[in-house]
Amino acid sequence: MENKYKFLTQIEFPDDLRKMEQEQLPSLCEEIRHFIIDQLANNPGHLASSLGAIELTVALHYVFNTPTDRIVWDVGHQAYSHKILTGRRAVFNTNRKYKGISGFPNPRESKYDSFIAGHASNSISAALGISVADYMNDDDRKVIAVIGDGAMTGGLAFEGLNNVCVHPNNLLIILNDNNMSIDKPVGGLSDYLMHLTTSKKYNTLRFKSYHVLKRAGLMNDRKKNAFLRFANSVKSIASDSPGNIFEGLNIRYFGQLDGHDVVQLVRVLRDIKDLEGPKVLHIRTIKGKGFAPAEKSAPQWHAPGQFDPVTGRRIIENADNCSLYQDVFGKTLLELARQNPKIVGITPAMLSGCSMNMMMAEMPDRVFDVGIAEGHAVTFSAGLAKEGMLPYCNIYSSFLQRAYDNIIHDVAILKLPVVLCVDRAGVVGADGVTHQGAFDIAYLRCIPNLTLAAPLNEYELRNMLYTAQLPGNSPIAIRYPRGKGAGEKWAGMPMEAVEIGKAVKMKEGSDIAVLSIGHIGNAVNKAIGMLGDDADKVAWINMRFVKPIDTKMLDAVSRKFKAVLTVEDGVLQGGFGSAVLEHYADKGTRIMVKRVGIPDTFVEHGTVNELHHALGMDAEGIAKTLKNLLKTIS
Amino acid sequence: MENKYKFLTQIEFPDDLRKMEQEQLPSLCEEIRHFIIDQLANNPGHLASSLGAIELTVALHYVFNTPTDRIVWDVGHQAYSHKILTGRRAVFNTNRKYKGISGFPNPRESKYDSFIAGHASNSISAALGISVADYMNDDDRKVIAVIGDGAMTGGLAFEGLNNVCVHPNNLLIILNDNNMSIDKPVGGLSDYLMHLTTSKKYNTLRFKSYHVLKRAGLMNDRKKNAFLRFANSVKSIASDSPGNIFEGLNIRYFGQLDGHDVVQLVRVLRDIKDLEGPKVLHIRTIKGKGFAPAEKSAPQWHAPGQFDPVTGRRIIENADNCSLYQDVFGKTLLELARQNPKIVGITPAMLSGCSMNMMMAEMPDRVFDVGIAEGHAVTFSAGLAKEGMLPYCNIYSSFLQRAYDNIIHDVAILKLPVVLCVDRAGVVGADGVTHQGAFDIAYLRCIPNLTLAAPLNEYELRNMLYTAQLPGNSPIAIRYPRGKGAGEKWAGMPMEAVEIGKAVKMKEGSDIAVLSIGHIGNAVNKAIGMLGDDADKVAWINMRFVKPIDTKMLDAVSRKFKAVLTVEDGVLQGGFGSAVLEHYADKGTRIMVKRVGIPDTFVEHGTVNELHHALGMDAEGIAKTLKNLLKTIS
Repeated sequence: MENKYKFLTQIEFPDDLRKMEQEQLPSLCEEIRHFIIDQLANNPGHLASSLGAIELTVALHYVFNTPTDRIVWDVGHQAYSHKILTGRRAVFNTNRKYKGISGFPNPRESKYDSFIAGHASNSISAALGISVADYMNDDDRKVIAVIGDGAMTGGLAFEGLNNVCVHPNNLLIILNDNNMSIDKPVGGLSDYLMHLTTSKKYNTLRFKSYHVLKRAGLMNDRKKNAFLRFANSVKSIASDSPGNIFEGLNIRYFGQLDGHDVVQLVRVLRDIKDLEGPKVLHIRTIKGKGFAPAEKSAPQWHAPGQFDPVTGRRIIENADNCSLYQDVFGKTLLELARQNPKIVGITPAMLSGCSMNMMMAEMPDRVFDVGIAEGHAVTFSAGLAKEGMLPYCNIYSSFLQRAYDNIIHDVAILKLPVVLCVDRAGVVGADGVTHQGAFDIAYLRCIPNLTLAAPLNEYELRNMLYTAQLPGNSPIAIRYPRGKGAGEKWAGMPMEAVEIGKAVKMKEGSDIAVLSIGHIGNAVNKAIGMLGDDADKVAWINMRFVKPIDTKMLDAVSRKFKAVLTVEDGVLQGGFGSAVLEHYADKGTRIMVKRVGIPDTFVEHGTVNELHHALGMDAEGIAKTLKNLLKTIS
Repeated sequence: MENKYKFLTQIEFPDDLRKMEQEQLPSLCEEIRHFIIDQLANNPGHLASSLGAIELTVALHYVFNTPTDRIVWDVGHQAYSHKILTGRRAVFNTNRKYKGISGFPNPRESKYDSFIAGHASNSISAALGISVADYMNDDDRKVIAVIGDGAMTGGLAFEGLNNVCVHPNNLLIILNDNNMSIDKPVGGLSDYLMHLTTSKKYNTLRFKSYHVLKRAGLMNDRKKNAFLRFANSVKSIASDSPGNIFEGLNIRYFGQLDGHDVVQLVRVLRDIKDLEGPKVLHIRTIKGKGFAPAEKSAPQWHAPGQFDPVTGRRIIENADNCSLYQDVFGKTLLELARQNPKIVGITPAMLSGCSMNMMMAEMPDRVFDVGIAEGHAVTFSAGLAKEGMLPYCNIYSSFLQRAYDNIIHDVAILKLPVVLCVDRAGVVGADGVTHQGAFDIAYLRCIPNLTLAAPLNEYELRNMLYTAQLPGNSPIAIRYPRGKGAGEKWAGMPMEAVEIGKAVKMKEGSDIAVLSIGHIGNAVNKAIGMLGDDADKVAWINMRFVKPIDTKMLDAVSRKFKAVLTVEDGVLQGGFGSAVLEHYADKGTRIMVKRVGIPDTFVEHGTVNELHHALGMDAEGIAKTLKNLLKTIS
């Protein structure tokens, strides 16, 4: 490692970085770039964003006194260099692994991680809180929020921006603009930011003037009012003022800078760091910078899996017969859309992640990628549905939390025919604590008028998607997990309606009935297979619907069996098992019910198998629970 | 009514309105104004907003072909004239009453109500969906979103705006700007909108030029590109371009107009209605317009209760000994803040509604009204908490749905000491279906690390607020209802810590234990009093905490009693009763549990008493359930 990483190996913490000469920084950045590419080639992670933010990260830690100064990252994708420079280089090979370091910044992992950063657009609000608190506490620390242009389209970012000028604070917002979120950026704002490139005369002028004055000793950073007056006079000189949105919101704007020129970044950050009041620095970066394949097609290199660091050849995992659930969704939606002209697709910035790009390719006018804007995605879908369209709105489970009120207020009250396709439901694995789709059953089950379904396998997902568009069957939420299905044949198979609220008995048994919801039923099947002779004692029912729940089946079960085991890939508090308990309580049925699911704790990162195992939710864990239950009732 | 309402009585539906002469409209507006004031003097409702939107409403229905054309109101406060002009004048005296018309637009009530409108900021997204659907369906209807400047600060509105220019649509957004939400407006945007007043030269110029060309027959509405080129050339002429945010987002901007000049409004709406592409019309109105007391202090006249329509004297309900819960919150928070300098108050535009104005008056630097921005309120609070502050963030239950992800992602994962004060929890009454605080127990109970409490009375609320700031006791959510407490003495009482997770036995009994959570326990107390001799058979326990639930108490109960009745003012699906069921199931305890709460349906408007009665949740209903339960177990 010594030769390849001459500078990097000298840096354990930012204090070491700050001892370096400024002219050494470009070389350091190149070393970090190689290090990240080398590491991610073997241990998959978020490549393209992290490559784009190397120079910015180095400049920030070089100029600011971290961790006393606070850097708040918006979405941790971009923060690998930050992790590497803050004591985690040696363990970076455990990134996203079970018991290893987290793929996103997390204050519980390091004091250099100022805030949690899994869901986009929260940085300005959080950093504003930190900055205002520091102001109130008379702490003289700097607070920096680093937000991408994609995250800027989220409503929360705007709410934050709108409040930035209200309270005394010295927040520095760095807009890391690569004209790209995971897919291409969406909306008027991205056009607007692009336009700013062409009208930077005013900003350049203002910044240069300030800079000259400062160098000449004529500018005192505490002279806030003087500078503001000064800025205004520059403004009046520059007659082609671009009408800056940030300045419209009373936030001083500086930009744009080349975000890969680390020396210039250092210089500018030093110049503006002590300015009082909120400010935006707009930098331009290239996603995937320095790795040709990633620069060329950043969306595909967002989180590429394993690859050859030299050729860029992607290493595809061994093929098996299982399709990704997302592809079952993508292909089936396209087929349905071909048959039904009222069907439209809506996604908040997850076009390729949910495989809606398949429909986009064939019918671009009927697919709406609304950018990182989950609330809008759902309310917009509701508006479409109100006028007779049939929107399939695909949002990952953990992000759907951001559209909760929209589901209740804009969809469910009016019973509008929106099909909520809840991808990444249940444990998702390496993305960890912020991304687990743990809560959707609990938070959706309490909403009146909403049907909630979860398929056991690929074919059932296909049929549920078909069922959703039949009259009267929506609003409906269909939840399914990240990753691969059960290997069930589905492609090209004729689509069949699934009776709403109807469970299916999969296996007979004598003593215990296992009621499962969704893909985790496959683990139940496997678990029963592990029981040997006792397998005959255990029946298995695929419930398919959390709501309406199949009460006839529940009643039949309580008449026949001594005990029930519910199994779900979601939180136990208020989840599917709870729905079963409620029915039996309301009926006055006294039957032993045990529940398997996610306990009342946040689940960290690891593979899905590792996490399910740790939570007793894999086949082995379920088998163990069944054995104990058989003992109890015998 | 004939003489007083000469024009109004001729109008049943907008078709009748459209037969009127333009010069008669001002008189009609005055009649509507009198009608609303007269009606609301007796039957309380939202006065100030509705008075401000009369001319706009008349102009819209006069110019547009409603209901074929769609008006989407943002927050129904402003829509009383709309209700009166669309077939509901005769039943307007039932506004907000049980089984009467709803206080907000609701498509299930009238085909003139294009969308649901209870929570602010959804109109642009919904109207965009409607407009895009119309475009796809080749319907040639117009779609208008009417949004206030207060609602514009919500992130959802921005997400909508950011998407307006992306898809083909002819949406007209009317920004009804009264420089006011319920309280004063907040943030950079309101400053920005105010600033637009002073730089309207360009807009006026552009609009007038277009207007002249159109009158001269030189402008064809279908010539979109020509007009855009034309507008751009005007722009280059007007060197003092205000740098319009809307135009930055590729939405054509027109304004500002006097929103009380109905004739001018009609003229302008006619001019711009057929322009293709999205557009904003910015109008200025006065909240409370035409009723002097309301013009003078609009926040106090937002929803004033009964009043004298001539003098403006407010008719105060008969005083009793009960305080409003919101005042217990407001006063106690102020007392706590005096003692603990780390305490700060955060509210999204509900400063007076939650009585945080008491703290604001004494310590304005420690109270943050962030505008209509629930998500930001919570994430900003998390940022403050991260740096050692102790934020009390007050949000109504139904609006807290908008901050759901912020609670999970930004507060609970890091276990930050944020105190969520959930006002208006449970049935809220006249505001109806969109405002019922029905879901918070279910959606909060599944979040790890979060304590969830509900006080029985004023003093318990006071003590819970005190408890929340003791080390280690937060994050916590404290839910309490709209309206008055139980008459418990609290003001000036010494504050005592409530043991987290500890229930209190209120009354002994032999056969049934009633477990209640929150204020509804007072109805339980009353219900037991109605049982006569059977009262001895019923014990009552005030659980105080949904989470952690007092498992020792639950176990003691199951050992002693034959049956349990849970009582909560919230949905039964996944609610407090469900938590009780889960504990007994996990323990293997077989005891009969019945549950009282809100069933799986949306609850409409009426008084809280009427609604609780209809749902079997008042003392009478609970007594009836207890009698049946006593029969069952005997």
